[in-house]
Amino acid sequence: GDAKRNDIGYSATGYARSLFEQWGFDSITVNPYLGMETLEPFAGYSDRGVFVLCRTSNPGSGDFQSLRVESGELLYEVVARRTVESNRMGGFGLVVGATYPAELVRVRAIAPELPILIPGVGAQAGDLEAAVRGGCDASGAGAIVNVGRQIVLASSGADFAAAARRVATQIRAEINRYRPPAPTS
Amino acid sequence: GDAKRNDIGYSATGYARSLFEQWGFDSITVNPYLGMETLEPFAGYSDRGVFVLCRTSNPGSGDFQSLRVESGELLYEVVARRTVESNRMGGFGLVVGATYPAELVRVRAIAPELPILIPGVGAQAGDLEAAVRGGCDASGAGAIVNVGRQIVLASSGADFAAAARRVATQIRAEINRYRPPAPTS
Repeated sequence: GDAKRNDIGYSATGYARSLFEQWGFDSITVNPYLGMETLEPFAGYSDRGVFVLCRTSNPGSGDFQSLRVESGELLYEVVARRTVESNRMGGFGLVVGATYPAELVRVRAIAPELPILIPGVGAQAGDLEAAVRGGCDASGAGAIVNVGRQIVLASSGADFAAAARRVATQIRAEINRYRPPAPTS
Repeated sequence: GDAKRNDIGYSATGYARSLFEQWGFDSITVNPYLGMETLEPFAGYSDRGVFVLCRTSNPGSGDFQSLRVESGELLYEVVARRTVESNRMGGFGLVVGATYPAELVRVRAIAPELPILIPGVGAQAGDLEAAVRGGCDASGAGAIVNVGRQIVLASSGADFAAAARRVATQIRAEINRYRPPAPTS
């Protein structure tokens, strides 16, 4: 559920219930601007995934996310670090757009073990190869490449189902081609 | 519609349509983390209000909002300044919690003409007097004090409607008592 929700704790608890219980999503996206405390109601669902917006795929995402703060870090790096530090329940992940491959490598270094949701491939023209190579963890996994419009809008004709399947299959093959091998040790 | 929505431009356009056209809200709240570009689809509805989260009322809102950035400003101050600069259409406002009265004064100085939506009074125990005095503009207006739970949960009995009315009337009287007089010049 790519809902990008968040609110103060009282309302965040309601959003968590709505997304996980009413809608039944396995994983969702949330916005960190309100602070880590507001992510706790979502993280309380220990069998669900909570992907925190870190460096989003859109052209203007640097306005605030790439501001350098007093610690020397950029804001999205602080978000990545705080998310790692708060990951006691084990359900957190991060969102980094394929349109920012250098930032993706940086976030993978800060969060070596968190899953990273990577939108921006396809309609937004992010680089799939860089996304897979930069986003995978040391075991060759942990990068979740999300492709939306390129698949669901593959055809507006009667062949939409077959067209969507064809594009999805192509992208899956391409992802697996770029995936680093798992360590053999 | 205190929806605190936002997303990349393509989806932000959908949220704007949903909130303003399907739901018919006069004003909404939006989250700035994705950058100013993502606020444009909302601002395109020139007869509606778009309140940008700036310094939110919750206890942990300083995690990111109060980080000092290279320019010397705090992040919420940058959000306030960028919102003022982007207010060509005239529909923007800012959200600052009554729980942070010093920050409210600071935002009013950065944005002397923008309406400020001020939650946090009531259940969240923000200071109503400081909210009204700090939030009003030079004409003694422009502060929109939002009280939710204290009113709607005033009673769980059969008298809920009368109880809610009584609390709302009390708060309105108190707000008007603290309102600075409009300049007479």
